[in-house]
Amino acid sequence: MEKIRIAILGCGTVGGGVAKILLEIGNILNDRSEKEIELAKIVDLFPQAASKKNNIPINLFCGGGKDLSKEEADRCIEEVLSDKNIDIVVETIGGSSEYILNLVLKILNSKKHLVTANKALLAKYGKEIFETAEKNNVSVGFEASVCGAIPIIKAVKECFTGDVIESISGIMNGTSNYILSKMKFEGKSFAEALKMAQNLGYAEADPTLDINGGDAGNKLAILLKLAFGLNASMSQIPIMGIDKIEQEDMDFANEMNCTIKLICYAKKDGKKIFATVRPMMIKNDNFLSNINGAINAVKLINKYSGEHILVGKGAGSTETGSAIVSDIIFIAKYKDNISNKSATSDVCLTDEDETEFPYNISFETKNVPGITGAVTTAIGDSNINIDTVGHNRHNKSKAIFSVATMPCKLSQIKKAIDQIKTSRPDILKSEPKIIPILY
Amino acid sequence: MEKIRIAILGCGTVGGGVAKILLEIGNILNDRSEKEIELAKIVDLFPQAASKKNNIPINLFCGGGKDLSKEEADRCIEEVLSDKNIDIVVETIGGSSEYILNLVLKILNSKKHLVTANKALLAKYGKEIFETAEKNNVSVGFEASVCGAIPIIKAVKECFTGDVIESISGIMNGTSNYILSKMKFEGKSFAEALKMAQNLGYAEADPTLDINGGDAGNKLAILLKLAFGLNASMSQIPIMGIDKIEQEDMDFANEMNCTIKLICYAKKDGKKIFATVRPMMIKNDNFLSNINGAINAVKLINKYSGEHILVGKGAGSTETGSAIVSDIIFIAKYKDNISNKSATSDVCLTDEDETEFPYNISFETKNVPGITGAVTTAIGDSNINIDTVGHNRHNKSKAIFSVATMPCKLSQIKKAIDQIKTSRPDILKSEPKIIPILY
Repeated sequence: MEKIRIAILGCGTVGGGVAKILLEIGNILNDRSEKEIELAKIVDLFPQAASKKNNIPINLFCGGGKDLSKEEADRCIEEVLSDKNIDIVVETIGGSSEYILNLVLKILNSKKHLVTANKALLAKYGKEIFETAEKNNVSVGFEASVCGAIPIIKAVKECFTGDVIESISGIMNGTSNYILSKMKFEGKSFAEALKMAQNLGYAEADPTLDINGGDAGNKLAILLKLAFGLNASMSQIPIMGIDKIEQEDMDFANEMNCTIKLICYAKKDGKKIFATVRPMMIKNDNFLSNINGAINAVKLINKYSGEHILVGKGAGSTETGSAIVSDIIFIAKYKDNISNKSATSDVCLTDEDETEFPYNISFETKNVPGITGAVTTAIGDSNINIDTVGHNRHNKSKAIFSVATMPCKLSQIKKAIDQIKTSRPDILKSEPKIIPILY
Repeated sequence: MEKIRIAILGCGTVGGGVAKILLEIGNILNDRSEKEIELAKIVDLFPQAASKKNNIPINLFCGGGKDLSKEEADRCIEEVLSDKNIDIVVETIGGSSEYILNLVLKILNSKKHLVTANKALLAKYGKEIFETAEKNNVSVGFEASVCGAIPIIKAVKECFTGDVIESISGIMNGTSNYILSKMKFEGKSFAEALKMAQNLGYAEADPTLDINGGDAGNKLAILLKLAFGLNASMSQIPIMGIDKIEQEDMDFANEMNCTIKLICYAKKDGKKIFATVRPMMIKNDNFLSNINGAINAVKLINKYSGEHILVGKGAGSTETGSAIVSDIIFIAKYKDNISNKSATSDVCLTDEDETEFPYNISFETKNVPGITGAVTTAIGDSNINIDTVGHNRHNKSKAIFSVATMPCKLSQIKKAIDQIKTSRPDILKSEPKIIPILY
């Protein structure tokens, strides 16, 4: 039986999960791939800790098991790359630094297949990485980079290949979803819920990318390329995080029979793709409204087969590890025929302002009579049909109420808000909050 | 670019959907597979009708477009099989007759790859079919045979390959699910709901296999082989249909915060597999309880990545067609490396009676005092812990009530019922109905 030898660079949460699975179910993996899958070498700065955590034999670690300096680790990596017997390198170091980009390019230029969970790197340098793989006739497995254990990458690349994806909507960041669930069901404030997520280890010490939508944006950028052939970096996608969501927004959503979720959204209309990451009010009969806690979910609407939903764990050691191992098996089985080319396409992103959506706009105003009239008149003057006006929350100094619209453009809403500011410069106490409604 | 030539045998609902997709998005399919996918030939008894329905050029049909006798169609099929240029044959005739088995074996023996939606055939003759494919070094694509558009076959074969599937529970028959949804939400009787399903074209004129669980059983048999390496025909799996479900059962389910669904269930415990198809009461916080109408859903619990859910359309022309086309693309891409071997395993089915489950038992009894005591005493004597006793429905002549148990064996329940029959031969007015509860 042909041997396929694996090296893991970085044996932290995810790399450790990969090693654990390779060691525990090696026989099953050999059966499935009809190859002998061997974990040959691991490079990590702290082998003792990594070995202990996942019960990995210490002799698998480069350097004989002692802790390594960065320079020693780099020498170990060089050893792996020059080892003709290593077929697949798993990169589970993470980050999108130039160091990691260079490392990944070196792996591919050493004619080794690459498997990685590194969404930030792929979203930023995907084009260069896949071209380098193609040039060297090796593959890149990246199932683990989007939604952890959910096989969304293979679903798009290998399963829905008899169809045309028309839209994507998904919950792709477990931390923000956990926070929003705690806010909804336990009435926590954003800050309290974030603290809880950090205590549970869901959110990083620096949770910026989880909360500002950046992590979800990286994932959407990868899917845009795969599903629509669109080369877009995260910076081109309009992204808004969940840090401005307050209990009042939860209330408004509830009143509209909706639940607020951080949604990765993309829809193709001819050659135009509308893509965004932002909190949306999801109608409660939409599946995504029911996805709570640290779970991820992706909904696709396909031309020929309609609606598909995939739900699973978006993160975790063996969860993400299992996605990486599935890439290893896929490469072991099909390496001679895997292509890194993705269909080129002349699509482009559309302007968010000009895309129609139903929106919920919440207004914080002075608590005086006549405001509902002024606000809804301005909205009508902007040619927006109002779906419903939420009931007002009054207190001494201010009133808060929301207006849900029929599908309209963001530019129309901005025009209406400008009109309110001009005609009644005294009434708005803060910038109105605009949240799309997803049916 | 290498050409891959396709022939379709049987251009009805599904075959027509396949032709439609191949013709409409040919360029996209070529890009994806890096092959030139060509629909070369179609054999159907009624070309005019098939052509008209899906806008298929008449010259693609064998026989020049005129209606064919069975003998003429057989000669057309022989032509296809002896045509060295045909690479993949799509069998969308259906049925598990000897005629179809022989046809499928002939396709494979002609060294042509086979793609089929034929669950009945695969469940019955899968072993022979896959061995014949292996011998001839060709592949069998059967994504469309289980849950239509849901890519559950590729999910198990190609996506969850870095994991171990521990249990499967799914709604795999859209017709019965539609009927149960109508009974639940609109209070229809089974007969009325069945009539509605037939009027909508969901249920066949002879809906036996939809209603008696046979169709779902075929699908489960295919998954048992794929997920657990178990060779079991449908006849070895305990199967119960939905035809005995009444409004009262819906009521009891509701009282238990459950919804009744026809569930394909399989769970691995060491070398033992418990598999069954039957109506179950699904707790309403289980995703499956929310799958309504003609939709299918599969929930897998995996060792390393936990719970996964896939939801999509279980039937339909282009829905099932898209699954077949995805197999065509997969074969076009990876044909040199696809294996038909599935991991052998020494697992076996366990006795249903000896598998623990929480159950709901409903009793139709005489309307006299003392019955709840007699029934619950017998249940306790059988060493079954009771979870809850449903409230009684009394009318003049009878009372109906239900008992939900903690996990216990069916054999214990049968013993309790025997005891009731022996000690109080007068009280039961019908055989108690035993429905498993799925959390």
